[in-house]
Amino acid sequence: MGNSAANDIARLRVEVCELNRALPGLGLVVWTAGNVSARVPGEDLLVIKPSGLDFEDLTPESMVVTDFEGTVVEGDLAPSSDTGAHAVVYRHMPEVGGVVHTHSTYACAWAARGEAIPCVLTMQADEFGGDIPVGPFALIGNEAIGEGIVSTLRGSRSPAVIMQNHGPFTIGKDARSAVKASVMLEEVAKATHLAHQLGTPIPIPQADIDSLNDRYQNVYGQK
Amino acid sequence: MGNSAANDIARLRVEVCELNRALPGLGLVVWTAGNVSARVPGEDLLVIKPSGLDFEDLTPESMVVTDFEGTVVEGDLAPSSDTGAHAVVYRHMPEVGGVVHTHSTYACAWAARGEAIPCVLTMQADEFGGDIPVGPFALIGNEAIGEGIVSTLRGSRSPAVIMQNHGPFTIGKDARSAVKASVMLEEVAKATHLAHQLGTPIPIPQADIDSLNDRYQNVYGQK
Amino acid sequence: MGNSAANDIARLRVEVCELNRALPGLGLVVWTAGNVSARVPGEDLLVIKPSGLDFEDLTPESMVVTDFEGTVVEGDLAPSSDTGAHAVVYRHMPEVGGVVHTHSTYACAWAARGEAIPCVLTMQADEFGGDIPVGPFALIGNEAIGEGIVSTLRGSRSPAVIMQNHGPFTIGKDARSAVKASVMLEEVAKATHLAHQLGTPIPIPQADIDSLNDRYQNVYGQK
Amino acid sequence: MGNSAANDIARLRVEVCELNRALPGLGLVVWTAGNVSARVPGEDLLVIKPSGLDFEDLTPESMVVTDFEGTVVEGDLAPSSDTGAHAVVYRHMPEVGGVVHTHSTYACAWAARGEAIPCVLTMQADEFGGDIPVGPFALIGNEAIGEGIVSTLRGSRSPAVIMQNHGPFTIGKDARSAVKASVMLEEVAKATHLAHQLGTPIPIPQADIDSLNDRYQNVYGQK
Repeated sequence: MGNSAANDIARLRVEVCELNRALPGLGLVVWTAGNVSARVPGEDLLVIKPSGLDFEDLTPESMVVTDFEGTVVEGDLAPSSDTGAHAVVYRHMPEVGGVVHTHSTYACAWAARGEAIPCVLTMQADEFGGDIPVGPFALIGNEAIGEGIVSTLRGSRSPAVIMQNHGPFTIGKDARSAVKASVMLEEVAKATHLAHQLGTPIPIPQADIDSLNDRYQNVYGQK
Repeated sequence: MGNSAANDIARLRVEVCELNRALPGLGLVVWTAGNVSARVPGEDLLVIKPSGLDFEDLTPESMVVTDFEGTVVEGDLAPSSDTGAHAVVYRHMPEVGGVVHTHSTYACAWAARGEAIPCVLTMQADEFGGDIPVGPFALIGNEAIGEGIVSTLRGSRSPAVIMQNHGPFTIGKDARSAVKASVMLEEVAKATHLAHQLGTPIPIPQADIDSLNDRYQNVYGQK
Repeated sequence: MGNSAANDIARLRVEVCELNRALPGLGLVVWTAGNVSARVPGEDLLVIKPSGLDFEDLTPESMVVTDFEGTVVEGDLAPSSDTGAHAVVYRHMPEVGGVVHTHSTYACAWAARGEAIPCVLTMQADEFGGDIPVGPFALIGNEAIGEGIVSTLRGSRSPAVIMQNHGPFTIGKDARSAVKASVMLEEVAKATHLAHQLGTPIPIPQADIDSLNDRYQNVYGQK
Repeated sequence: MGNSAANDIARLRVEVCELNRALPGLGLVVWTAGNVSARVPGEDLLVIKPSGLDFEDLTPESMVVTDFEGTVVEGDLAPSSDTGAHAVVYRHMPEVGGVVHTHSTYACAWAARGEAIPCVLTMQADEFGGDIPVGPFALIGNEAIGEGIVSTLRGSRSPAVIMQNHGPFTIGKDARSAVKASVMLEEVAKATHLAHQLGTPIPIPQADIDSLNDRYQNVYGQK
């Protein structure tokens, strides 16, 4: 590992630590159930939260660096038990720089039924470009979860997948973008859940979804 | 622009910044999805939040001043992508001094079904004077959203409109009043949603709505 | 007014101010919509929040003292627009030392349907001793609301009434007890709402309700 | 009582106090309705919250030590009115080191209907190893509640029982583990409630539940 990778890792330890610590305040996790990781640019390495620690006890030093098999390269602690899933995503999706896994409540309600979230709000069209898809049920401990994420999200505009009976994974160009997708996912999962409780939401025509998504991805924010 | 307008803008930068920063704590927005603006008195100018910045990073200096075409007059940042909608409201409704847009969750659930919120609580009669109306679906990027807001709210007692598949816009004599309307809207959107889940709410007779609204608008609070 | 009443008023200004300021954090109010009052012992006087002020701006000095007609005796501000209702309660229920009014969300959902909350949780049996009753719809501005509260709660074990289309009022031996009843009311209003969404709750037999209520009122807490 | 027990009690006063004080922030309790206790290792003694005090006023010194009949051994205050239930659990389940009782809202909704929570989320398989069972309705004040908890949880993988019409009790190897189970219970109670509102969740096959539970109990976290 060269100096550049070492600098990237030092920077990403801080960033990944801060984003993990932000999850409880964003309403996305309870207790220790969730994790954020980032790809080390140009290396087959990722930086991720250690397993089972309280979010408020996390420090940059306690973050764990693993390769894309999930083997620890740096760090004294065991990495998140979801590390294998993150690693598969980085290995197969080179455009992904950050991955987030939560058990956010409304997304889990859709997950328990194995139902995609239909696109009935402009916020969803903006961020997800259509329905938010469901991935297969898979047990933790081998590459099945990671492969389910990749097969569902590859070629999709959605940066979020809801794994059946499990919960959401989100991706982004960096860890912060993946956290943003987790926040937006839970928000549209809740609003769309509520909308369905009292009747049938009005679908947004596909051409309008395309137009909204294109504008949001290319015009919104600062250049 | 004279001294007086410059003073107003300086004051409104502080006020608009503070009100934007208050939105997350009021439970009305996630991430960067929402914005507050204010009219500069006597000028065809408005002060609004920049696009896509974190609420906690906003400062009075980062607020953007635009004309009523949405063209930036002061400020280094791109204005909110909803500036066009705000501008149309100020241009066509001279009594409006503040505009707020959010994607508050329960209001969005009504928006996804394109349903007005019926008046079944005195709090709604007080603040909104009747049902809270739905505006048309419209794409962002031209004047369609602003025109939909104006055509729905002009002549209505309601300071809030729920844009179909999108979310609420509220107006007020100043920015603070428009924020208040956003808070009250989300509260009645939630309580009325819940009321419908277990049966049929009892309507309030129109004469009583009129009486409640008149008293609240004219007697409530300090003189 | 003697020294003793003046001392009581000074103490109650502090207490009523603190309890009003606690309402937002307890999740019972939005914006300025709610109020706590206390009876001045041995006097036909009450201490109440001023009308329409932000909770966080309240000070002991801004509290208003009125007689039991709602006429201001001490204070520069207009009292809560619900003062008349509080006054009627104190006038007719000498055992009441504190009154609270909120628009707490789940209680309002029951209010909009004009439905009493059935007693299906031991927490409700403990605090309310049975169903939580609904009071009549009444307009603000004369004694109708206060009379509706009194006629519903007199002779009831419940310290809470849900006024139809309006919201809850709670009473207690002092202002703190009335705030507690507001907190417990919203909690059972929510849990019981949720219980009904997925089926039919199991009623608690009346003899068990009586037993729970007796124990909670007489044994719970410190002597 | 020897030096060792005295040291354990001193340590547990701090731990039990901190865990009780954490309950409101974890969203598990309102007002004073909830309590955490811990077993004093090797003694027939427990440390528990006093009855009816505000959580924020709790101190290590105000914790109460009782024997397994609920008789106070140390402390000036009356112990939690649920002490008898905690004592019965410690007496009959020697592997239990901590007990928590709350009235968390979604768990209470299941309790009011007397329905077990079906296992449709991996989070529930992880922590509870299957459905979360319902215990019998029982009045407070004798050993009926404690016996109902023991008869339901003995031989179960679930560290949580939902007592009918009442609310949840959770157990753990120590008080912190029991608090964790209360947090996870409320989370799965909510997500599973929501899942049922819009359709029928997909069950997780028993073999997969077993596999998830085994891994979570034996592999998750730091060794």
